[in-house]
Amino acid sequence: MSKRSPLAPARFPRLPEIDGVEIAAVAAGIKPGKQNDLFLAALSPGSAVAGLFTQSLTSSAAVEWSREVVEAGKTRAIIVNSGNANAFTGTAGVETVKGMAAVAARQVGCRSGEVLIASTGVIGEPLPLDQIFRAEEKLGDHLGSCSWKRAAEAISTTDTFPKGAFATCEIGGKRVRIAGIAKGSGMIAPDMATMLGFIFTDAQIPQQLLQLLLVRIAGRTFNSITVDGDTSTSDTLVLAATGRAGNTPPLSIKDSSLSPFVDALEQVARDLATQIVKDGEGATKFIMLEISGATSFQAARRVGLSIGNSPLVKTAIAGEDANWGRIVMAVGKAGERADRDQLEITIGGVAVVRAGERVIDYQEEPVAEHLKGQEIQIGVDLGVGRGSATVWTCDLTHGYISINADYRS
Amino acid sequence: MSKRSPLAPARFPRLPEIDGVEIAAVAAGIKPGKQNDLFLAALSPGSAVAGLFTQSLTSSAAVEWSREVVEAGKTRAIIVNSGNANAFTGTAGVETVKGMAAVAARQVGCRSGEVLIASTGVIGEPLPLDQIFRAEEKLGDHLGSCSWKRAAEAISTTDTFPKGAFATCEIGGKRVRIAGIAKGSGMIAPDMATMLGFIFTDAQIPQQLLQLLLVRIAGRTFNSITVDGDTSTSDTLVLAATGRAGNTPPLSIKDSSLSPFVDALEQVARDLATQIVKDGEGATKFIMLEISGATSFQAARRVGLSIGNSPLVKTAIAGEDANWGRIVMAVGKAGERADRDQLEITIGGVAVVRAGERVIDYQEEPVAEHLKGQEIQIGVDLGVGRGSATVWTCDLTHGYISINADYRS
Repeated sequence: MSKRSPLAPARFPRLPEIDGVEIAAVAAGIKPGKQNDLFLAALSPGSAVAGLFTQSLTSSAAVEWSREVVEAGKTRAIIVNSGNANAFTGTAGVETVKGMAAVAARQVGCRSGEVLIASTGVIGEPLPLDQIFRAEEKLGDHLGSCSWKRAAEAISTTDTFPKGAFATCEIGGKRVRIAGIAKGSGMIAPDMATMLGFIFTDAQIPQQLLQLLLVRIAGRTFNSITVDGDTSTSDTLVLAATGRAGNTPPLSIKDSSLSPFVDALEQVARDLATQIVKDGEGATKFIMLEISGATSFQAARRVGLSIGNSPLVKTAIAGEDANWGRIVMAVGKAGERADRDQLEITIGGVAVVRAGERVIDYQEEPVAEHLKGQEIQIGVDLGVGRGSATVWTCDLTHGYISINADYRS
Repeated sequence: MSKRSPLAPARFPRLPEIDGVEIAAVAAGIKPGKQNDLFLAALSPGSAVAGLFTQSLTSSAAVEWSREVVEAGKTRAIIVNSGNANAFTGTAGVETVKGMAAVAARQVGCRSGEVLIASTGVIGEPLPLDQIFRAEEKLGDHLGSCSWKRAAEAISTTDTFPKGAFATCEIGGKRVRIAGIAKGSGMIAPDMATMLGFIFTDAQIPQQLLQLLLVRIAGRTFNSITVDGDTSTSDTLVLAATGRAGNTPPLSIKDSSLSPFVDALEQVARDLATQIVKDGEGATKFIMLEISGATSFQAARRVGLSIGNSPLVKTAIAGEDANWGRIVMAVGKAGERADRDQLEITIGGVAVVRAGERVIDYQEEPVAEHLKGQEIQIGVDLGVGRGSATVWTCDLTHGYISINADYRS
């Protein structure tokens, strides 16, 4: 891993073990050196698994495979490699996917069709199956004795720190645990980017409800972050529930026993998603865009993403400049309803634009002070409705250019 | 003006005078120093004028005013200032627009409602009318004795070189001239960006037909360029036809006498539009994206813009890396139909991807050599239809970050 992002959390959190989940992470030689690059999770029989995949119309073979596995409704294993995305590798790529499924199936003791697969890394280069085969035994030996931190490292590529998060809550009086790992630092944009996320829980949740939950929570977390607006061919977010906590399964998303779990899950997902932003390539500032007064949540999120993807806004913040004109510009290009003459903008809580005009003599000093910090808050009220959303992004710096004009991903 | 772009043309072209057009450019003190920042064009009575404006939903007062003038169908003057966009300046901004119209009307001898207005520069700062008033007399004195180069300079902001283009052709045996000036270097994206363009001709074309022509040609030129995907609140493209050439007016866009004019106009518009890209902030390479095999022109253009707006593609080209994987990624996120397994990509004319896979042993040397040059050609065949489009963009470099993290626009 390269130099740790200045926005990285102090340390990897202490993720709990999840009953019914066994993990392994080994070095298969796909990434250079002896870095861990192959991850396997074995799920106990009867686990429910939900998945969300890239919206890219040129998605990878692994994504196509995994979509079908999730739809079939029975998943017993997840195998992930980093260092090579196995994308645009034609028929060889499809063979590699089959081979990876076979390896996982043998080690977990299930059918190939019960294995989810994700690959991330270089596009267009063949991923030699023999490397995976050679690592198979090590993978099996390792199963059940692996730390979450090591697992998070094994799924990482240009990440400068491993990403994990956890929460506990109760469902109908039963204690339930949630643990998740994620990776991603560039090519991050909504509807999944080069972003992998795997969240595990021992809660008992029926598969259909689990999928509904994942869609809802992803909209407010993983699909509300952006680093550079680019979308990868491999993005995958998986939520696996083993049911070992033994809670009474909730039957509907409206079931009141479910709400602490929804909150806890959203917290884990938000934590992972914002860690990805904090590892944004070249990022020196973490930006929280709070959009309100929109016609809907979707409209608010689109406006937030328009601001969060604007190179001019992101460079202004890198330059610690309260350039609200660029924020207004980005609101305008989002294509969502806004009232120019009702627009309100705050930076670090200080109103700089009110009723569509600069607040004469707004306090520049606290704003300047806020912009010197690492966590930047920008509020935008569109003045046309009650929809709101939060979008997270980072600044655009020389670091991004250096990483992406040199590193071949 | 700052350091000239390395992609700038050797010199400003020799634009012809256009019969029925008188221009002036003076220094009103809006830009620092004694830079020219106020431009006036007087059009002879009976001129037809077409206009296209920003799609931004937070457009400036000048844009709102000018839209109405074009719709009313009678334009006698165009007044433009640089250095201040007069955007988000509330009721004071509306007063400034009225004042500018009055100044132009007095000097040209027309009604205020016959004056088109454009402003470009800093957003959100008041544009003091008294500066415009003080410059009025100078403006009148200067009318008719101004060079196109000086006019192009007067409408510029962060541009590093003035932009002009011309062409001549015949309509039904009559010689016709076209001359245009433009400005723009950052915040350039389709559907107009901080982009101003003014094209003048002595051809006689009915207003409705002129508007139709402008829309068609803008789609293939000004709306097919991108620097950073950002869209300004002030973009304006105007086409004025004085009719002084005395040609028989064509009645329909299908009139065969019109086709040389359409070609010449497209040439001028493309020349101006690509000059804007060549002045892209921090640009060191000019990139031509030729998309074919799409379901339509619109689909091809959208794919081209998706590639042309991708920070990952643009940084790869800055790094002279034949990273076709990022091109494939950008095709995938465009949301247009493409066949992953039919995709073909060429760089500098050399096939690097065929049938969705890397061409094994493609000639890397000529590709590497091509990427070292200043003009980069990338061809993408989507393999699903017959639609094609060309999109122009530039690379994303440290220069862009330096300009936009420091300059307050």
